[in-house]
Amino acid sequence: VFPYDRLLIATGARPILPDIQDLSLPGVHRLHTMNDGLHLRRSLDDHRAQSAVIVGSGYIGLEMADALTHRGISVTVMGRSTVVLPTVDAVFGRVVESELRTHGVRVESAAEVQAIVQDRARLRVESALTKVSADIVLVGAGVIPNAEIGAAAGVPGGIKGALRVNRRMETNLPHVYAAGDCVETWHRVLRAYTYLPLGTTAHKQGRIAGENALGASREFEGSMGTQVVKVFNLAIARTGLRDTEAQEAGFSPFTVETEQLDHKAYYPGARRLSIRITGDRKTGQLLGAQILGPWQAEVAKRIDVFAAALYHGMTVEGLNDFDLSYTPPLGSPWDAVQMAAQTWCQAERVTYQKSVGN
Amino acid sequence: VFPYDRLLIATGARPILPDIQDLSLPGVHRLHTMNDGLHLRRSLDDHRAQSAVIVGSGYIGLEMADALTHRGISVTVMGRSTVVLPTVDAVFGRVVESELRTHGVRVESAAEVQAIVQDRARLRVESALTKVSADIVLVGAGVIPNAEIGAAAGVPGGIKGALRVNRRMETNLPHVYAAGDCVETWHRVLRAYTYLPLGTTAHKQGRIAGENALGASREFEGSMGTQVVKVFNLAIARTGLRDTEAQEAGFSPFTVETEQLDHKAYYPGARRLSIRITGDRKTGQLLGAQILGPWQAEVAKRIDVFAAALYHGMTVEGLNDFDLSYTPPLGSPWDAVQMAAQTWCQAERVTYQKSVGN
Repeated sequence: VFPYDRLLIATGARPILPDIQDLSLPGVHRLHTMNDGLHLRRSLDDHRAQSAVIVGSGYIGLEMADALTHRGISVTVMGRSTVVLPTVDAVFGRVVESELRTHGVRVESAAEVQAIVQDRARLRVESALTKVSADIVLVGAGVIPNAEIGAAAGVPGGIKGALRVNRRMETNLPHVYAAGDCVETWHRVLRAYTYLPLGTTAHKQGRIAGENALGASREFEGSMGTQVVKVFNLAIARTGLRDTEAQEAGFSPFTVETEQLDHKAYYPGARRLSIRITGDRKTGQLLGAQILGPWQAEVAKRIDVFAAALYHGMTVEGLNDFDLSYTPPLGSPWDAVQMAAQTWCQAERVTYQKSVGN
Repeated sequence: VFPYDRLLIATGARPILPDIQDLSLPGVHRLHTMNDGLHLRRSLDDHRAQSAVIVGSGYIGLEMADALTHRGISVTVMGRSTVVLPTVDAVFGRVVESELRTHGVRVESAAEVQAIVQDRARLRVESALTKVSADIVLVGAGVIPNAEIGAAAGVPGGIKGALRVNRRMETNLPHVYAAGDCVETWHRVLRAYTYLPLGTTAHKQGRIAGENALGASREFEGSMGTQVVKVFNLAIARTGLRDTEAQEAGFSPFTVETEQLDHKAYYPGARRLSIRITGDRKTGQLLGAQILGPWQAEVAKRIDVFAAALYHGMTVEGLNDFDLSYTPPLGSPWDAVQMAAQTWCQAERVTYQKSVGN
């Protein structure tokens, strides 16, 4: 028993495990703790695995597919969703599938795993439609909050059972804070709580809980679900809401995809970025953005420019007022994010404003 | 004679030419118009120039030093300033000088050019201290506004003679707009007019003048002097005010330089970024930032994150609230710009708050 003046619940989350037997078979790995990673690496070194099945086609699964392929291992990704990387629009997910296949990864989508069975020295992963054998199996299929300790103490559970906190990261219990993957997260664009377990968010929440526990008075300013993942030669990034998410939240979303060069075409090595902007057609408000492009074409920091605009509730048109940097090898006088914004505005005018006779 | 309903003065700027004879010698090139560029390239091809002197060590001069060196030409840069690239702090300028020398460029700083003379088939550029001979000479030493037409029509001239406009890009004359390198520019951080001839600014001002001429009512939101330049393997970027500029403008600036990795050290290829943040120690307001690092380490778009924060008048501390993207190959859970902001806040507390007994 430890007495406390202030208590922080930072119990994190744990991997969702498919509802199947035999997850304890040797050669089946989870991807959660540092030790899971060290254990996997040792196992790869010791057993010279030549093939792997990855269960889960989200960002963790795809990062592992990239990493294992670089180690010379033959990889199959099996995911429940119809297209990989379901956190971005399917049109981007399909480009990612193609990138995976180009690098020799077998992709089995819409494949709910039903069993993992020992198959002599190997493991066989079975879905309704397909059976894939490999030396090792990695399970990376999302997480659920470790809310049990908080719940037992009387903190109510919200979305997916995550602990309820306010924006000061206080629970309902006096002097008890909670932060990170075990709590509900304030979403800045939705103006509502959601469950978004991300390292960036956990860092921010922990800092705010800690400062408040020491007497400060700060509020968590909210997550916008900003994310980026590298898959072979691509980076895929998002921030804010996608069209369907915005629709569900009561906005009037309009989404436009455009292709922009990362820098001036006359300077060697210009690369194509696909940029999808979602804005509200009633207010012009920026709601979200997604970018797909070569991973060294500043995709990650370009989504951050959208994230900064979103943070401040700017309109799509307002992005053009940002004084962004320019030099021919690295950008354009209107950066790609601004040209995408201009395209959105034009398309919005053509699609909606003309139709009502303006 | 052309009558008009609305008139836009977009006469741009012209190169400042050193106050010396013989700028008309064959082999002396200006770097202003597209034709100047085409003429230079033809001249390089025809005469197989093997050496060049570049007069001017600002960003145009250094970009040319990079480009000509890549063509196999031996380059000397002669600049008036004591360190190259005087638009960033000297500590960065010295790193750039070292980068130039590493790539074989001779750098003559504090060298005011006094004469260019024909020296048999070559040209000799002379300053008080040094004489350098080369096959060609490029002059890239800044610009002055082409304000004559506007001035003759009665538009008053301001800083460096640039035409005075309001934030709607209107001159004092009815129905006459002016925009681009010929006008004074509203500076968003200074809350005052300045002369900042940049392509990014000219594009924005032209768009606003054009919209207003057609009946809209928009204001130019201001420049913050955001810039980036690539010099060999480095990118050097800035936005907002430097310490001395902030001091002159009446702020209480405090500048902290930190070194940050562009992405997590455990993922191969992490690179060091030097980040200088200038903030106001009375209000905590972000005033400006400078970044120097490898040109492919997302330096350009990282300065844009600072620019977005600056646009909204955020505090340095406030940068930590931005929900920025993260994946180990491309960033950290706190991005480098946020870790630099945290270092600024700590240093500010240690330096000032402790000293007054808080």
